[in-house]
Amino acid sequence: MDLDKKIAQFVQDLEEKTTKRRRDLHHYPETGWTEFRTAAIVIGQLRDLGYEVSFGKDVLVDGECMGVPSAKVLEAQMERAISQGADPALVKEMAGGRTGVVGVMDFGRPGKTVALRFDMDCNDIVEAADEKHRPFREGFASVNRGCMHACGHDGHTSAGLAVAEILAQLKDELCGRVKFIFQPAEEGVRGARGMAAKGIVDDVDFLLGAHLMRPKVGYLGYDVQGFLATSKFDADFTGVPVHAGSYPEKGKNALLAAANAAINLQAITRHSEGSTRVNVGVLNAGTGRNVVPANAHMEVETRGASSAINAYMYGRAQQIILGAAQMYDVEVKLTQTGGAASGNNSPELSAYIRKVAERLDIFDTLDTLRDIGGSEDCSYFMERVQKHGGQAAYLIIGGSLAAVNHNLYFDFDEHALTLEAQLLATATSGLLKE
Amino acid sequence: MDLDKKIAQFVQDLEEKTTKRRRDLHHYPETGWTEFRTAAIVIGQLRDLGYEVSFGKDVLVDGECMGVPSAKVLEAQMERAISQGADPALVKEMAGGRTGVVGVMDFGRPGKTVALRFDMDCNDIVEAADEKHRPFREGFASVNRGCMHACGHDGHTSAGLAVAEILAQLKDELCGRVKFIFQPAEEGVRGARGMAAKGIVDDVDFLLGAHLMRPKVGYLGYDVQGFLATSKFDADFTGVPVHAGSYPEKGKNALLAAANAAINLQAITRHSEGSTRVNVGVLNAGTGRNVVPANAHMEVETRGASSAINAYMYGRAQQIILGAAQMYDVEVKLTQTGGAASGNNSPELSAYIRKVAERLDIFDTLDTLRDIGGSEDCSYFMERVQKHGGQAAYLIIGGSLAAVNHNLYFDFDEHALTLEAQLLATATSGLLKE
Amino acid sequence: MDLDKKIAQFVQDLEEKTTKRRRDLHHYPETGWTEFRTAAIVIGQLRDLGYEVSFGKDVLVDGECMGVPSAKVLEAQMERAISQGADPALVKEMAGGRTGVVGVMDFGRPGKTVALRFDMDCNDIVEAADEKHRPFREGFASVNRGCMHACGHDGHTSAGLAVAEILAQLKDELCGRVKFIFQPAEEGVRGARGMAAKGIVDDVDFLLGAHLMRPKVGYLGYDVQGFLATSKFDADFTGVPVHAGSYPEKGKNALLAAANAAINLQAITRHSEGSTRVNVGVLNAGTGRNVVPANAHMEVETRGASSAINAYMYGRAQQIILGAAQMYDVEVKLTQTGGAASGNNSPELSAYIRKVAERLDIFDTLDTLRDIGGSEDCSYFMERVQKHGGQAAYLIIGGSLAAVNHNLYFDFDEHALTLEAQLLATATSGLLKE
Amino acid sequence: MDLDKKIAQFVQDLEEKTTKRRRDLHHYPETGWTEFRTAAIVIGQLRDLGYEVSFGKDVLVDGECMGVPSAKVLEAQMERAISQGADPALVKEMAGGRTGVVGVMDFGRPGKTVALRFDMDCNDIVEAADEKHRPFREGFASVNRGCMHACGHDGHTSAGLAVAEILAQLKDELCGRVKFIFQPAEEGVRGARGMAAKGIVDDVDFLLGAHLMRPKVGYLGYDVQGFLATSKFDADFTGVPVHAGSYPEKGKNALLAAANAAINLQAITRHSEGSTRVNVGVLNAGTGRNVVPANAHMEVETRGASSAINAYMYGRAQQIILGAAQMYDVEVKLTQTGGAASGNNSPELSAYIRKVAERLDIFDTLDTLRDIGGSEDCSYFMERVQKHGGQAAYLIIGGSLAAVNHNLYFDFDEHALTLEAQLLATATSGLLKE
Repeated sequence: MDLDKKIAQFVQDLEEKTTKRRRDLHHYPETGWTEFRTAAIVIGQLRDLGYEVSFGKDVLVDGECMGVPSAKVLEAQMERAISQGADPALVKEMAGGRTGVVGVMDFGRPGKTVALRFDMDCNDIVEAADEKHRPFREGFASVNRGCMHACGHDGHTSAGLAVAEILAQLKDELCGRVKFIFQPAEEGVRGARGMAAKGIVDDVDFLLGAHLMRPKVGYLGYDVQGFLATSKFDADFTGVPVHAGSYPEKGKNALLAAANAAINLQAITRHSEGSTRVNVGVLNAGTGRNVVPANAHMEVETRGASSAINAYMYGRAQQIILGAAQMYDVEVKLTQTGGAASGNNSPELSAYIRKVAERLDIFDTLDTLRDIGGSEDCSYFMERVQKHGGQAAYLIIGGSLAAVNHNLYFDFDEHALTLEAQLLATATSGLLKE
Repeated sequence: MDLDKKIAQFVQDLEEKTTKRRRDLHHYPETGWTEFRTAAIVIGQLRDLGYEVSFGKDVLVDGECMGVPSAKVLEAQMERAISQGADPALVKEMAGGRTGVVGVMDFGRPGKTVALRFDMDCNDIVEAADEKHRPFREGFASVNRGCMHACGHDGHTSAGLAVAEILAQLKDELCGRVKFIFQPAEEGVRGARGMAAKGIVDDVDFLLGAHLMRPKVGYLGYDVQGFLATSKFDADFTGVPVHAGSYPEKGKNALLAAANAAINLQAITRHSEGSTRVNVGVLNAGTGRNVVPANAHMEVETRGASSAINAYMYGRAQQIILGAAQMYDVEVKLTQTGGAASGNNSPELSAYIRKVAERLDIFDTLDTLRDIGGSEDCSYFMERVQKHGGQAAYLIIGGSLAAVNHNLYFDFDEHALTLEAQLLATATSGLLKE
Repeated sequence: MDLDKKIAQFVQDLEEKTTKRRRDLHHYPETGWTEFRTAAIVIGQLRDLGYEVSFGKDVLVDGECMGVPSAKVLEAQMERAISQGADPALVKEMAGGRTGVVGVMDFGRPGKTVALRFDMDCNDIVEAADEKHRPFREGFASVNRGCMHACGHDGHTSAGLAVAEILAQLKDELCGRVKFIFQPAEEGVRGARGMAAKGIVDDVDFLLGAHLMRPKVGYLGYDVQGFLATSKFDADFTGVPVHAGSYPEKGKNALLAAANAAINLQAITRHSEGSTRVNVGVLNAGTGRNVVPANAHMEVETRGASSAINAYMYGRAQQIILGAAQMYDVEVKLTQTGGAASGNNSPELSAYIRKVAERLDIFDTLDTLRDIGGSEDCSYFMERVQKHGGQAAYLIIGGSLAAVNHNLYFDFDEHALTLEAQLLATATSGLLKE
Repeated sequence: MDLDKKIAQFVQDLEEKTTKRRRDLHHYPETGWTEFRTAAIVIGQLRDLGYEVSFGKDVLVDGECMGVPSAKVLEAQMERAISQGADPALVKEMAGGRTGVVGVMDFGRPGKTVALRFDMDCNDIVEAADEKHRPFREGFASVNRGCMHACGHDGHTSAGLAVAEILAQLKDELCGRVKFIFQPAEEGVRGARGMAAKGIVDDVDFLLGAHLMRPKVGYLGYDVQGFLATSKFDADFTGVPVHAGSYPEKGKNALLAAANAAINLQAITRHSEGSTRVNVGVLNAGTGRNVVPANAHMEVETRGASSAINAYMYGRAQQIILGAAQMYDVEVKLTQTGGAASGNNSPELSAYIRKVAERLDIFDTLDTLRDIGGSEDCSYFMERVQKHGGQAAYLIIGGSLAAVNHNLYFDFDEHALTLEAQLLATATSGLLKE
């Protein structure tokens, strides 16, 4: 109980600093795999607090990173990060978009390993430039046009650093180890897979993640179930263009291959063990009315109630696309651009969080979310921890949002960060007590 | 001119015998690859006339024979042939449906080689049992239920034997060689390919074929152009059946693979060099409403203005069917059941026939058929002769038909056979004169 | 408790009679809408017991009866029924397949109305003629070739008549009313809709149904949830046939319309509120390889976790089929051949049944079936009773089956009928006590 | 002969003026329906020569004009035309893109009516800015970025004005009437239909059109056969967008409707009477991977060997698109953006042109083009003249092109214009002699 009070005090002391940091990150948002400035700040801060920090190649498997921008884009964003104050040496080490960071503190006494995961990237959105939008009114709106923290990851990162600071201050009272994971590219569910594949959570006993969402400050969703597994991928068909009137038989028609693929993707047989989804969201093909279309670009996603069911969907999707290409004798290239596992909180860890929250009495609503739907790539870490015998929980923190996630007027009440930090620090230290 | 008169006399002498033979064949019709009795008669007759006769394996390449019935069916028809008077030893040598016959007479003096081609098979039709149908009224209608000579091949075979008899009688006056080809399985365009593949016309300078058709006796179509090349084939898809409500994802859906194939076959791109056709005429799939359908049977044909264009159609069809099977992860088996090359008379040979016909003055209409359409597998022989530098002509002989070809009331005026025999014998002997 | 014992005694006294009746019905099985002999027996028996019996037009809405055979078939089966001993006058009144029967007994004292529903039809199966098959060995196998009681409806009907006899004997002790419903054509889920539409259960407070299934005698499934709503229907497309080589543009292609419909039916979008199914189980189209196919017959079923979700599936299916017909300018006729509502036991009634079963102590396993899947048209009665404020329950009775339902070796241990009758009679009399 | 010489002299005198005019038009190119400056020049010039000029609403049926740009685009181009020297009053009268011009001269003596048709619009091409490109090198390349005369219509218009000047000078020697038609929007085959529909060629006895093409100066194609009839149209499907994971069943999928339409358009049955084409050249659908796509834009063209065959193709295309929209319950809008009739020269008029050309002896090659393929909307005028009993001919004039038509390096030898003018003036005056 003593510890609870100490943490409450630390959090209060940090409230102004956390808010300031959130606003700085909001001012300089960076999209997935280009979080060079953000990651450099995280690295510096964790090091200052005494964490052993790994990043770049040490925490990512390149081939498992999805939807990484082109080298040209990455280089431009590296320059921008440096021009906005990032440490050039650190930025250089993250070349290629390797912006994941892991900070570990070993408390020197036998105990459990607890991991805390936060995401750092922003959205591809032009932020509202409007007096009614607080970040604009108060001068911390985005200066990077087309980039905006419209999903609260600026808050997540700031709260994460606050928790890191608190636990560092309690290091003499804790056992085991704590591991902070700052993940790139959660948007488009692209970033977690590459870090999980590196094995960074394979030794973890308890994993916690959290997200700011709509309901009022004071809301806590402590038992989250039903993240859908998902695969996001593009199919690019390439045929042979010819004049459609003169020699149509010499063409190879990419548009018709894609059209067949689209219809038959939608027709993938339902799965008896759980719900599925498939969507061909975009199809662009052809260059002119009188030319046999030789190019087709298709953006697809599948979902499944479990990773196995999504694997069925994705496997069938590949067969269908390859078969459609063969029908029209065209080439096709599949590019995976994102993905998430299915995810469900471990019941014991959810119950533990509920107990901690009740004891702290800082939330007025304690809720369960049994069928959350949608996808979040924290699931890759959760699945891996659970497979190795550990427990995982994902928490929803009420943020009193000004607008829904991904809206250009998105904003939240920064007091939510204090509650988040207090809950996570208290829960973690409890797990590291004996 | 002396020769013309001799032949005219021979033909007249043979008229009754030819009619009798035609009626006997009409009485005992045999469908494609089961012409055991018919071929045995042809063999016997040619041997009696002094021809050197080859048949069975000697005149057919097995792998190129299309749409051959099952062993069981063949055996039953062999028995029937024997019970209807066929020489058992000959029938035995034709086991497996090898019912093609070639008879050659070498006149012992240097000269050209002329081939004459006739077809022997009947249709899968139940003949009319009706007083208004002459074969029934006069007692020579089919005794083999479901088999009927409704396309005049009984007449073709009889006329062919008459020509063979005439030329044998003229052997002292002729040079070079004459070759009689009696072909099985013209219906469904199945039989010629296997004989042509054996090389039996590779040494032929002039090839003549003929067919009885609608117009009045006295009509001659001496210049036929535009037989479409065609491929006939079946596609049989095999998937995995499961209950459609319980575990649909464990099924593999042959019906949907076939449905996709059918639509995309119809969508094969037009060819700029000539007309094409494609038809999925039959599709049968599935066994019950609540079972994922695991079988689909599809009957397809393609056509093209030239053999090359049809090859394009057939090639694309194969790609589409294999691609559709891959899309649904099912097996597919393609079986070619028939085919014909494109075909056009050689201009010089057509002109020669016209001259002969004018001289004989036995036809009142001399016509050209520039765009005959449809398919006839005599084209395989024509194409092969023309490729080797020879000439070929296909002739249409007016038959004053009682009903259109393939109708259960089909019949013709047997005097047409006399005109056909006279024309062919005269034209052939002219080509073998010096 | 006194009553419990009385019923136990009645049941025991009836065991031999019930078994004999079941074997008689097994010997003379009748498929859906042709249960002329079976219904005539039921009518006679109910009348003998003092029930007020309605049947034929009085208990069915013609237009809501699905999958009724042709007049010719019905007439033949009426003759067969008479030849197998059915009362000709009764059979006549059931002309047109109106084989539903309702027997009511009013106990003359105010009380509840309890309905008990049984099905009477057999399957389209050729029964095993094999010594290892008891009905064959003991001489009561089907004498109606192609008809077999392979789903236990012979047992259901016999047990129903036993319950009717018991309750009639208890009439002085009961209040309210009891209503026996003997339904035709449960196979293919065709018969219940027409009886429910007539309003025969609109005054019912409690409805009970039951089915013999696999597990051992002694098994009772007292709480059944999750019957899927389903629609079964045929689509018949009619186009215009023409020769595919000569004038293809003059044809109207029914095969391609159906192929498009099939693929797009499979592609009906998933529903977020519950699971769905769709299956095109059969597609037969076309008459010959070289004819544009002018006919296509398609057998389809949809399912949904609720009646509303199935209505979405069926509504979309209709749009797709009509649209596909329009694409190919062909006619299409939709025929509903079967259907069932979704269905779930009323919790209170399930709980009541459990209590009765515990008290009787004649079952060794009391089970709940939360996700039974499949479809059963008793759901139409259940849904209608529940909508009118009543309660309904469907029960699974262990039958120690010799083979799975619908198998040619299907048979069951007739002692199950005694347990079924005892449970239903006891439960019903309990509901009619005060 | 006297007249031939006079015309030869006039043409020579005009050569420099014609070249200058062509270069001016090349410098200020205007795309279809925006030929405000070009038409204003034509109007002014024809009036100066004494022609009675009609234009704007008097020569066009609005509803038959296809692919007219938006009001906004038209207004901007009107302003540009004025800024580039066009008479503001004339431009105003052509508001709405009504840029067609007709000039008539009645010679006051009974005789025939001869029409001469020229096109005025340029292409949507950025002209080469490269020393090797003569128009650039010599300073007359386009100043209107994205607009370029890459198909020689600048030459056609200039030659037309030269012919108008010559015939005006010969007015005392001619009978009947001559009618000059300057047509907008030939590119995309959009402009002729609206002028033909107005009836402007219904009184014409002889119609002549011409086009510059590849072969050397001195080439004349005097007998052109086989323009394909064509329809160009867009289909825009509109559905309902929803999140593809959350409530997919509430969406209406425009992408899948369009995909079905595309495949089945390609599958329109071949026509036995002549060749056909169909191409879906462009398909753009959807806005994001995880949204049910609610919009789809498709660009289509059909072709046929005759107007009737193309009407079959276009009629089937409409059925298919409407049916596909119905299948997916989405709206669809069809917009015709272009079209041409089939076209063949009248044999007598071709023969007359050949005789004139032989007499003049200014061409070294006189050719027939029996199977020109492609489409040209002069066919609308030709078809209408021929239907009314007149004759029409389209001529190909060798231009020694620097690059193929529609290429950014397109240019031609302006001497070709002199030959064209001499031929047309001589032929026309011959037809107007007695």
